[in-house]
Amino acid sequence: MKLLYPTSLVLDTKSLEGFSVSLHPYDVTTPIPDDLIDAEILVTWTNKPENLRDAATRMKNLRWIQSLAAGPNDVLSAGFDASRIAITTGSGCHDETVAEHALGLLLNGARRFFEMRDYQNKGVWPGHLGGPQPDRAPGTFSTLKGANVTIWGFGNIAKCLAPVLTALGAKVTGVARSAGVRDGFEVVGEDALPAVLAKTDALVMILPGSASTNGALGKERLALLPKHAWVVNVGRGTSIDEDALVEALEKGEIGGAALDVFSVEPLPTSSPLYKAPNLVLSPHAAGGRPRGAEALIAYNLRRLLAGQELKNLI
Amino acid sequence: MKLLYPTSLVLDTKSLEGFSVSLHPYDVTTPIPDDLIDAEILVTWTNKPENLRDAATRMKNLRWIQSLAAGPNDVLSAGFDASRIAITTGSGCHDETVAEHALGLLLNGARRFFEMRDYQNKGVWPGHLGGPQPDRAPGTFSTLKGANVTIWGFGNIAKCLAPVLTALGAKVTGVARSAGVRDGFEVVGEDALPAVLAKTDALVMILPGSASTNGALGKERLALLPKHAWVVNVGRGTSIDEDALVEALEKGEIGGAALDVFSVEPLPTSSPLYKAPNLVLSPHAAGGRPRGAEALIAYNLRRLLAGQELKNLI
Repeated sequence: MKLLYPTSLVLDTKSLEGFSVSLHPYDVTTPIPDDLIDAEILVTWTNKPENLRDAATRMKNLRWIQSLAAGPNDVLSAGFDASRIAITTGSGCHDETVAEHALGLLLNGARRFFEMRDYQNKGVWPGHLGGPQPDRAPGTFSTLKGANVTIWGFGNIAKCLAPVLTALGAKVTGVARSAGVRDGFEVVGEDALPAVLAKTDALVMILPGSASTNGALGKERLALLPKHAWVVNVGRGTSIDEDALVEALEKGEIGGAALDVFSVEPLPTSSPLYKAPNLVLSPHAAGGRPRGAEALIAYNLRRLLAGQELKNLI
Repeated sequence: MKLLYPTSLVLDTKSLEGFSVSLHPYDVTTPIPDDLIDAEILVTWTNKPENLRDAATRMKNLRWIQSLAAGPNDVLSAGFDASRIAITTGSGCHDETVAEHALGLLLNGARRFFEMRDYQNKGVWPGHLGGPQPDRAPGTFSTLKGANVTIWGFGNIAKCLAPVLTALGAKVTGVARSAGVRDGFEVVGEDALPAVLAKTDALVMILPGSASTNGALGKERLALLPKHAWVVNVGRGTSIDEDALVEALEKGEIGGAALDVFSVEPLPTSSPLYKAPNLVLSPHAAGGRPRGAEALIAYNLRRLLAGQELKNLI
């Protein structure tokens, strides 16, 4: 069997040796070369859509595609036959990186680094942001200590983020389609959103992209948040109604927002989000760095060869 | 006995009731009024220097001063007689807040939120900072995962910060005057600095102010850091040679610096630090919010009344 791995990231292929599989690097920016087209296994990462479509028609022996992206969208839209080919995602490879970025965005909001930067650029000392100040004054989000942080979309990224927030003194509540206790954190159903949002100091959105999450945070739910609450989005841009968010920011109806994802990326220069008050913009930088890819590939390779079900199978 | 507590912060005085001590609020912006001048206990926070000097001459019955600042400098320089009056600091009340801020500055450097802000202000999408990217590329500080974080000055703030860094995947090494293992973290002596600095991805300075720490990080030690290393200072501004730091930043000899403290504050507009590349400026905002002050006062009050040695006694 041939396994094709992409050169679009650095993989430690030594950890993939020892299987009855030959390992072949390939370039994701060009079509799969003829001598590799009979491969049974394809690992993908940032492949050009046209090359994926080309591979979908030409790779007749393909049994398994291991994407390193969090979701299978690019592979599925290329036309691979999921009824015949096992498609597995890189879910889990992005948990730590996205969680770290979300933490950074939360602290950026709480500690107002973005505002400090604006003053620095003007050569002005932002004295009002330093010196003696009240600790955890009511109606502020100035620290994670004691803050009610709500994580909407309580999957693996949330499970990675929540313990760090707890260590910093935050009270974490999850929101997901099904309620329960996950990894020791209380997760409520979406029916409880009104009550939870009303007590939220910071809302972290990690919703997947789907028709049901489109515009999940719109005008009505934004209005439920306290005036000082921050919104952090590291899930999908489409899950926030951006017009409603801009309006809430401009009217001071929420404390601020730190967004890593947008309904259109790159965000057009004409977007009012660039200039919205208390808006922190991050250019889809939370993830994009698969971590632990070799371990995932090796694990699934073992299972494939043993005839067992693959991990992250869609 | 009379205990005077400052109205310059919100204290939950209920938790100080039940002792054989009467509690009296006072205004730190005016001299102590005559009817309170016979108090035995004075709690201080952001008192005006002239009012502290006035209190030092007029408060003849004073037995104990509980400062809520991390250090005793303002009380000592006011002329209180430390041979007769027990002076205790608010050491410990600032650990969590300073540690949280230091974490935020580290993530600001690693995730380049400051650079994203500059692009946002121009209405330009900072595409080079987002999208697919190598994870932990050699010669970069782009995540705490796997990063060698050196904490120079390994006291209570470091003990609060280090476990969170470890939880995010960093390898923490402490540097202090005496080597050993503290709270499970390896702490090396300053003689080991050259070897440690050479392997440091991020250096967090939490040194106290003293003659021996002045200019601790100067041209020679800056030169020992890798080109990608970040310097974070939440200790004292005087512990860094700012001219040498600006030069290192301008020449690209280090990756960046995030400073919360400066040798002169407010930082004069003429300072080249404002415009130094990869310099993140924070206006002495890490601490300044005593946390757990009531518990410390109550604890020391019990010990005073029992004739035991006070906590944080200088």
